[in-house]
Amino acid sequence: MTDTNLQLTSTITDDNKLELALREIEIPQPGENQVVIQMQACPLNPSDLGVMFGLADMTTAIQSGSADRPVIRAEVPAKFMSALKARVGKSLPVGNEGAGKVIATGSSAAAKSLMGKTVAVIGGGTYRKYLCADVRSCLEIAPGTSATEAASSFVNPLTALAMVETMRAEGHKAIVHAAAASNLGQMLNRICIADGIDLVNIVRKPEQETLLRDMGAKYIVNSSSDSFYADLTAALIATGATIAFDPIGGGKLASDILTCMEAAASRNMTEYSVYGTDVYKQVYIYGALDRGPINLNRSFGFAWGVNGFLLFNVLGKLGAQTNIAMRKRIAAEITTTFASHYTHEVSLAETLHLDNIAKYAKQATGEKFLIKL
Amino acid sequence: MTDTNLQLTSTITDDNKLELALREIEIPQPGENQVVIQMQACPLNPSDLGVMFGLADMTTAIQSGSADRPVIRAEVPAKFMSALKARVGKSLPVGNEGAGKVIATGSSAAAKSLMGKTVAVIGGGTYRKYLCADVRSCLEIAPGTSATEAASSFVNPLTALAMVETMRAEGHKAIVHAAAASNLGQMLNRICIADGIDLVNIVRKPEQETLLRDMGAKYIVNSSSDSFYADLTAALIATGATIAFDPIGGGKLASDILTCMEAAASRNMTEYSVYGTDVYKQVYIYGALDRGPINLNRSFGFAWGVNGFLLFNVLGKLGAQTNIAMRKRIAAEITTTFASHYTHEVSLAETLHLDNIAKYAKQATGEKFLIKL
Repeated sequence: MTDTNLQLTSTITDDNKLELALREIEIPQPGENQVVIQMQACPLNPSDLGVMFGLADMTTAIQSGSADRPVIRAEVPAKFMSALKARVGKSLPVGNEGAGKVIATGSSAAAKSLMGKTVAVIGGGTYRKYLCADVRSCLEIAPGTSATEAASSFVNPLTALAMVETMRAEGHKAIVHAAAASNLGQMLNRICIADGIDLVNIVRKPEQETLLRDMGAKYIVNSSSDSFYADLTAALIATGATIAFDPIGGGKLASDILTCMEAAASRNMTEYSVYGTDVYKQVYIYGALDRGPINLNRSFGFAWGVNGFLLFNVLGKLGAQTNIAMRKRIAAEITTTFASHYTHEVSLAETLHLDNIAKYAKQATGEKFLIKL
Repeated sequence: MTDTNLQLTSTITDDNKLELALREIEIPQPGENQVVIQMQACPLNPSDLGVMFGLADMTTAIQSGSADRPVIRAEVPAKFMSALKARVGKSLPVGNEGAGKVIATGSSAAAKSLMGKTVAVIGGGTYRKYLCADVRSCLEIAPGTSATEAASSFVNPLTALAMVETMRAEGHKAIVHAAAASNLGQMLNRICIADGIDLVNIVRKPEQETLLRDMGAKYIVNSSSDSFYADLTAALIATGATIAFDPIGGGKLASDILTCMEAAASRNMTEYSVYGTDVYKQVYIYGALDRGPINLNRSFGFAWGVNGFLLFNVLGKLGAQTNIAMRKRIAAEITTTFASHYTHEVSLAETLHLDNIAKYAKQATGEKFLIKL
């Protein structure tokens, strides 16, 4: 390995600047239970962009450096600096997952068994050429499956499965999903069809309705439609869904979902209660596509909850057995149930080209970038 | 019993009107395990006003009838009528609790044992002269305790105790309480002092700070102060409180509490996380003093929850043993820990006089009405 190792890093400086760059780092030596992976493909997930952009205003971004070693600088609004103080001056490695080929291993049997194999990996800093990872962070992929196919084996598949397991653990019988035409949403749709769970898909555009309908989705409602409340309430009555997952957060969608759930639950109430029904209604916020405030209008009684939903915390709650079962299912179904679809492929350097940043920073539903190394 | 029985009732009519009146009803006959209570004192709790006013605009209220049999009519804004449809045309009895003397009983030993006793009672419609109640809805009060002293034996005492038990059950170590100078807040303060639990009291006025400080409260912060965020964060660091109870709801107080909890939790963080700390932060909304939207600004990471908190649902979760222990403690400490303070006493008829309604509809902290029958 005489090659150079490169890592995409994100740094906030104390003069309110964000700097993105490819830094040369050591090629790592694996410890006993570790492997070195030559990374081949990594998705750009919304959760990666959070670390990468660090609340900077990307409309102010300028590009310098060379085409091979681009550097991006952007302004961080002063009001966000206190929230970022723990990372000022530190070069954070970017990238939460990806896949590649194991080119060196530690001395343990588990490490050695992965030599030469294609593995998916989860862990900080996958946007680099050579990554040293613990065996437990790796998922061995079936022969014949490419690194591109395996690149998104953790974040979206585990999140979608964790939603279903949370629904079961908390006693709900059907699910509502917002921004449902996303890669994650399509995955959740496939899981729910396979497992016989009713899923109410909320989308914003007619073409997203068509996309999901063509994938076999039964309940699709369009939040841009004049009949959204009536449509959503009808779907909630049909499915009995009382748990929702929303990656948007800002605005009043969570509130609208709770209101329609309450309308569905109270439709047969014969006794009036000032407190609303005793049907417990839950919305989990798992993203921040809209960073604005969440506005909850109080028209859904007192039996409700709105909670943050963060994959790593949720996996901890679900327990080891469920976690192992999830990983097995993902490995077995990575090209079917858990297949991801990418609309753009870029090199590591191209990831830091302004024209690409302008596209993936929008986080538009239906658009997804893959970094090919 | 040749007396007339009277019940304060609240009716919404389909022409968008609220009507409050005293209706003559039958003097009840007790069933086997029931008692008839001559009601003597009932508090006007915020939860009673919800049923009583039914979202009507009380600034439009007019009074008719006689001084002894007043009738109040007010307009219900058209936009609320769909939320009220289950109660249109029904005369709802008002009053969730009170105390009085048992004047007749059913044949069971438990019922007979209460004959002639002063009891507190929980159950719909206590604003009446004679109430028939199940023995299980009654709490026998120690000899020498008056009905006035026992009038508020359930709603506030059980709510305050349920907050402490919820804190314990969910693994928190200290409590934040908003609108903390209320009768309920004072009660919670006494429980926390007795049980050695740190309590952060949020108030809005200097005189409320003084009131609570004179009652031994250690942590008091004023949300009207310029240093509110710093004061609250300091109190959260000192106490480690990660659960809050808020009767206000509307506005951004819940959001501010979560933000300060996150600031307290992250003060020692050495590693930056775009997701915030993994310290779970909880706000329970147990009232609607401000009916406006709850605005959650997302500056507190992903480990958080905002949930409705309704006494009856919470008691169900806490289990029978805890419920029995709570009732015993209330009966033993009704004139000390669980003492209520009333600023106004009115007769049943005076409850429906406009000048009184104007006062108690404000739900001002520190003002509380007692109906003496």
